[in-house]
Amino acid sequence: MPDYFRSNIQAMAGYTPGEQPKHGSGIIKLNSNENPYPPSPKAIEALGAIDGECLRRYPNPYGNEFRKAVSHVLEIPLDWIIVGNGSDDLLNIVIRACAEPGRAVVYPTPTYVLYQTLTQIQAAEMVEISYGEQYELPLESLIAAQGAVTFIASPNSPSGHGVAIADLRKLAAHLAGILVIDEAYVDFAETNALELVKEFENVLLIRTLSKGYSLAGLRLSFGIGQPNLLSELFKVKDSYNIDAIACVVGAAAMLDQDYKNACADRVKASRSQLTVDLRSLGFQVWDSQTNFLLMQPAHHNAEFLYQQLKAKNILVRYFNQPGLEDKLRITVGTDSQNQILVEALRQIAFSNPKNVVKL
Amino acid sequence: MPDYFRSNIQAMAGYTPGEQPKHGSGIIKLNSNENPYPPSPKAIEALGAIDGECLRRYPNPYGNEFRKAVSHVLEIPLDWIIVGNGSDDLLNIVIRACAEPGRAVVYPTPTYVLYQTLTQIQAAEMVEISYGEQYELPLESLIAAQGAVTFIASPNSPSGHGVAIADLRKLAAHLAGILVIDEAYVDFAETNALELVKEFENVLLIRTLSKGYSLAGLRLSFGIGQPNLLSELFKVKDSYNIDAIACVVGAAAMLDQDYKNACADRVKASRSQLTVDLRSLGFQVWDSQTNFLLMQPAHHNAEFLYQQLKAKNILVRYFNQPGLEDKLRITVGTDSQNQILVEALRQIAFSNPKNVVKL
Repeated sequence: MPDYFRSNIQAMAGYTPGEQPKHGSGIIKLNSNENPYPPSPKAIEALGAIDGECLRRYPNPYGNEFRKAVSHVLEIPLDWIIVGNGSDDLLNIVIRACAEPGRAVVYPTPTYVLYQTLTQIQAAEMVEISYGEQYELPLESLIAAQGAVTFIASPNSPSGHGVAIADLRKLAAHLAGILVIDEAYVDFAETNALELVKEFENVLLIRTLSKGYSLAGLRLSFGIGQPNLLSELFKVKDSYNIDAIACVVGAAAMLDQDYKNACADRVKASRSQLTVDLRSLGFQVWDSQTNFLLMQPAHHNAEFLYQQLKAKNILVRYFNQPGLEDKLRITVGTDSQNQILVEALRQIAFSNPKNVVKL
Repeated sequence: MPDYFRSNIQAMAGYTPGEQPKHGSGIIKLNSNENPYPPSPKAIEALGAIDGECLRRYPNPYGNEFRKAVSHVLEIPLDWIIVGNGSDDLLNIVIRACAEPGRAVVYPTPTYVLYQTLTQIQAAEMVEISYGEQYELPLESLIAAQGAVTFIASPNSPSGHGVAIADLRKLAAHLAGILVIDEAYVDFAETNALELVKEFENVLLIRTLSKGYSLAGLRLSFGIGQPNLLSELFKVKDSYNIDAIACVVGAAAMLDQDYKNACADRVKASRSQLTVDLRSLGFQVWDSQTNFLLMQPAHHNAEFLYQQLKAKNILVRYFNQPGLEDKLRITVGTDSQNQILVEALRQIAFSNPKNVVKL
């Protein structure tokens, strides 16, 4: 094929999303951190009320109905909010607005792989700085790198740890570029970084409705930042990135904080139990501020475990990359799903005596 | 504000979408080329059948249910289809995959303004070549420019004319880069360029459900190209750019070709009548292959007409840019909307004797 594409695009592999088995396939899906509980009944009700006229016309370019709900719930002005077609859309917008050859993207690893993918697409320099052995933030190195954009996922995936607000504050204060704090999993965490947006003009917070609000299928996210920062991002945002349905359904879900918090509380309780159960099977399990657990088998090959679980219709996430090839990331499911998982892991251990885990 | 953003982003103005007045505001909205008829009842039915489980989980990354519907209707293989969050998303993907400093974007003007906006965001060279006085395609100049990407909207906006397939074929054959044929308005046209995708590996066709299918609020489009071409575009596409609802509702709309064609036939009949009526008021009106008309008042200032119509709750599109500042683009509405428009124009003419139009 002739030279139709930019060389960086030809050279890259592209992002591989988590496997998405068909609905009703009987698979226990613990691989892409979906919430195990359904969306708010009020969101479903809003979906049922959508009419053809809403679909016939272009949506509001700013997603204002949804923005108003966010503004109300978080007590921030409307013009501090930008909407996205999922968090990936907002990450994309930030990189296109800020990064290019000579303007680097910086982030600690391991983390969300899309930061790398989007930087490759943009052909910007990429500075990846390793987390410590137990996921200590490499604060000095991140400051020294002085990225045009620095991404911190907090809580982080796949480690599940939260980054201390004090460390994020130091970063924001010492970076000349933009600090993006990706709070995709914040609804399952003890703290959040909202106060930093008010303190620093270079901080952008990104949140999603995919996890805490059980709306991964809807594609809806929002960024929070000071208006001067957002005004440049609006230039890059697609005018109609948010469809009319997402705007209305997302607003209803956002306003139903009680439901969201109740689901998150159940997930957090299940997370505690699953952590105990997996540790009792001999796995190393990191403390998590998210709706998933990172675990490392003591005597098993992680990829082998992934495949054995898949054979039992349980899908978890295996990352074949340095620092993660000996670990699995497991979404916290319902208590009954988690019990089936634990039992399956126990069976795999017993039926493979050569690789037996400590019991 | 410090140097947070790339210089090209700071320098640009950003795209201004058409005004979107609130629903139920009583305004006759003829400014952004929405279909005057509602979406297919089958699409609305599909919307009503969506459940929470569909929203809870991530959607299929390829929008396969919708792709299958397109594949069935157009009789092309599944892997010749890529889905987009509206056409703008696909235009964006192509530019990010192909254009950069040293790899130019080329298109004839006037045309869809977003080609310019996206090229500015990408900081690629932009070669704009004027259409002839009566919108003759500048074929030789377009070939000579040899863009990495060449965009041809056919039918074109805001002129409404269709580009001859023979000319598109010559372009495809003589360009070393990709030819994107943007068929947003194809459902109202006499011909289409689908056959060129089969003939040329460098042709990408883009279509949308926003116009012909009355689904502007849903954000759904598709690109058609040979698999080798699409495989590179998939690297740039966001994994979950299409939400689960759009996939299902779009598939139902796509499969209901009879309804779509019946609506298009009504729009085309109304277009003929409106063309006659506007010409009888003394306006120059270009023949249109779309659901809008470009018209030029003989003795009126176009911006004045736009404002007078707005004062009468009729919204049309005025482009304050060279070659268009003396024209208006008017979406074809229902017959009754069109009659109200014509009557309003007649009144404006009579009440402003200094600028009287020829009757």
